[in-house]
Amino acid sequence: MNLLLLAPAEVRHDGTALLAGRRHEHARAVLRVQAGETLRVGVRGGKCGTGEVLSEGPEGLLLRVTLDALPPPRACVSLVVAMPRPKALRRIIPAVASLGVDRVVLVNAARVEKSYFDSKVLDPAYLDGLVSLGLEQARDTRAPQVEIRERFRPFVEDELDGWAGDSVRLVPHPPATAAVPRVDADREVALAIGPDGGWVPFEVELLERAGFTPVSFGARVLRVEVAVSYVLGRIR
Amino acid sequence: MNLLLLAPAEVRHDGTALLAGRRHEHARAVLRVQAGETLRVGVRGGKCGTGEVLSEGPEGLLLRVTLDALPPPRACVSLVVAMPRPKALRRIIPAVASLGVDRVVLVNAARVEKSYFDSKVLDPAYLDGLVSLGLEQARDTRAPQVEIRERFRPFVEDELDGWAGDSVRLVPHPPATAAVPRVDADREVALAIGPDGGWVPFEVELLERAGFTPVSFGARVLRVEVAVSYVLGRIR
Repeated sequence: MNLLLLAPAEVRHDGTALLAGRRHEHARAVLRVQAGETLRVGVRGGKCGTGEVLSEGPEGLLLRVTLDALPPPRACVSLVVAMPRPKALRRIIPAVASLGVDRVVLVNAARVEKSYFDSKVLDPAYLDGLVSLGLEQARDTRAPQVEIRERFRPFVEDELDGWAGDSVRLVPHPPATAAVPRVDADREVALAIGPDGGWVPFEVELLERAGFTPVSFGARVLRVEVAVSYVLGRIR
Repeated sequence: MNLLLLAPAEVRHDGTALLAGRRHEHARAVLRVQAGETLRVGVRGGKCGTGEVLSEGPEGLLLRVTLDALPPPRACVSLVVAMPRPKALRRIIPAVASLGVDRVVLVNAARVEKSYFDSKVLDPAYLDGLVSLGLEQARDTRAPQVEIRERFRPFVEDELDGWAGDSVRLVPHPPATAAVPRVDADREVALAIGPDGGWVPFEVELLERAGFTPVSFGARVLRVEVAVSYVLGRIR
């Protein structure tokens, strides 16, 4: 936890915030804060700054909050991700949030097991907790929007074009001959990341019709969370 | 498992191999192989190819092995990594092996907990199992060499220069002003990846004296496994 993330409503009119639970416990047991120290804080969706510790005790951690800094710049990346195994998803969502991705749509695919959509990881509160972990890691305040689409074809045919807007649209696909291009940092990128085992040809075809160019980043088959980080590094 | 990895001694003079245990179980229960099918195989440290299933039964999986392809090209990257938490190391080693890294030295650092060096994850057989997971994922046969150094300063002062050879030497360090450079694919790169919380100034100083240039890849603080994948994408 490299930043204490506050909900907007937690900052009171007098500029103080009283934190309980996981954040209080982290400040007490890991950071061993004392009155007078300052901690990095950020308001979900807003600015970053510092929190001066006014007191720490059974009632919680009382901070005087000063918000004077912008969160890190965005990656300007949106992801379509074939629904990963729940265990992998628990790593992917924090990673994606820490990298500053704007939007993630988790979609079905031929090589996705149906049961993945019943996982408790997809509970909105649980997902939001995973997003917070990534934001706290990266000292960011702006959460990616995470959505779920259980049907691939209607999503790709009816929604994806509008969703992707004027992004550079790429689908990493090992048999492709084009290399991953470099994209200017101010240009939006939309990436469609397949499941373990990859998209099937029919899915790549539909994605191509939606304007996604198949690209290869080498002979290696990477796990989704490694592939996402690697491709984000490559394109910029 | 995108490749069945064989030990050199498992391929017999008649070109067959009999697999038991985890690989047999994977072929039986996940791939549901039948006699006559072919599987991707590779020999640890050697070539890749196919294994024709001759039989599958209680005695194991009997393959006729043909080795006719090269493993994927190397990343030409060596890593110095501040010893991660055991839980993180279990993800980092497979990730690093899947990315084709040549060498990893796990070192102590000021922000590393001493107890990490006592973890059972560092048992050579356990580490090797993690390496295999990464190779199987990426369809690679060539394992990174993984070494452990419990003392940072003697390693950096006495060993690191020779170890890094004529690599481009970089130490990702958020306060640095230089950006991560692009490095030609045939040029070796050595990266020194700090712990959660980063290298302390004294450590960066020692690394600089060993020829490592501090570089920044942005305001985000990334988890080690995300940072490694991201930086590897960035430099090429």
